Amino acid sequence: MAGLLHHPFCPHSRYVRLLLFESGVKVELIEERIWERRTEFLVLNPAGTTPVLIVDGYPPIPGAAVIAEFVDELYGAAMQRRLLPVSTEARIEVRRLTDWFNDKFYTEVSGPFATERIFKRLLPLANGGGTPEGAVLRAAGINLTYHLDYIRWLLRANDWLAGERMTLVDLAAAAHLSIVDYLGQLSWKAEDRAKDWYLRIKCRPSFRPILQHTLPGLPPADRYMQFDL
Amino acid sequence: MAGLLHHPFCPHSRYVRLLLFESGVKVELIEERIWERRTEFLVLNPAGTTPVLIVDGYPPIPGAAVIAEFVDELYGAAMQRRLLPVSTEARIEVRRLTDWFNDKFYTEVSGPFATERIFKRLLPLANGGGTPEGAVLRAAGINLTYHLDYIRWLLRANDWLAGERMTLVDLAAAAHLSIVDYLGQLSWKAEDRAKDWYLRIKCRPSFRPILQHTLPGLPPADRYMQFDL
Repeated sequence: MAGLLHHPFCPHSRYVRLLLFESGVKVELIEERIWERRTEFLVLNPAGTTPVLIVDGYPPIPGAAVIAEFVDELYGAAMQRRLLPVSTEARIEVRRLTDWFNDKFYTEVSGPFATERIFKRLLPLANGGGTPEGAVLRAAGINLTYHLDYIRWLLRANDWLAGERMTLVDLAAAAHLSIVDYLGQLSWKAEDRAKDWYLRIKCRPSFRPILQHTLPGLPPADRYMQFDL
Repeated sequence: MAGLLHHPFCPHSRYVRLLLFESGVKVELIEERIWERRTEFLVLNPAGTTPVLIVDGYPPIPGAAVIAEFVDELYGAAMQRRLLPVSTEARIEVRRLTDWFNDKFYTEVSGPFATERIFKRLLPLANGGGTPEGAVLRAAGINLTYHLDYIRWLLRANDWLAGERMTLVDLAAAAHLSIVDYLGQLSWKAEDRAKDWYLRIKCRPSFRPILQHTLPGLPPADRYMQFDL
């Protein structure tokens, strides 16, 4: 049995939980509060970030990108529906877009929302806790509208973000969006392909355990647990 | 013949040039000034960042990490000394440390140095140009001392950062350090394993074309073109 050091509201941890579940890799979850900077954790991942995957016989595997490559190399060939497709062309596009959501969307949208609204509540003042910065949240909200338009554009011809099948890209994008969703910041258009796509992922069994987490004093937005149109 | 959209002082572009050279992949270099946000470039890479590798028959390949995986998948098996080693354990460590330098070292050291000292000179005022922020440079300088200690620690038992052979990690670390080196900000200890390692990489033929670039009005530091101890 493998273990995953994660935080329930870290979007990269959510992405890795989705990809492990969809790949059939069972893990024991261990919550890590990275701001406590536990020595034992820093030995596992000197970068001090979640998630970190622990698998017997291997060194600790830190970070969403390194974990995704590891899972593909070890379990991908046995999967009926590989999350990182086999053709070189598709691998380029899936890696490009997965990095897009894990890096760019995180920097511009899910990171600021998670930091300002969630982690600043959890952290002690001395470690960066405090009240959210309105200007940062407003900028993240504006960035979100552009990113949702890009998601709609990616879905213009297909049901999934990188083509006709679900890939790592869909899991990464939905993981980051789920943080924004918890905070009630997702607003859809009428007849919205992006909404249809998001609800399709949100209904999957892999998503269910993620949606269970709640924060004391900050309950999820009303629609967070609704799956219909 | 492949093409690489790059910038001579973008550390990620330098890393990719090193890995392409060391992998025997010849490319035509095309300088891209990302702050001009050329439409043709944004079509190739909507993220608007360098480097982007162009290879006939494939979609544009953007970003250091996606390019490294592409090169390993296409050319790695034919290489005598594979830069991304074959064993799963080594692949975890090489990917972890390559991301360390491309993400963490970049964010904490080479990014601030390149932005404040180099790109602020090149960019028009309206696009973020101007005078460097002293406080940012001081913080980057302090971060650098910790990173050099980590490099020394990685070299405690081996000649290369991820073991007994040169890997992607060494190329990434040296690429980012070369920006700091150009600015004269590298200071070595007496009997410094990190210095020995850096000079060993800097002497390689793959490094030579990178060292040729100079900036009008900001010549390289004296020691930049010296390769002896």
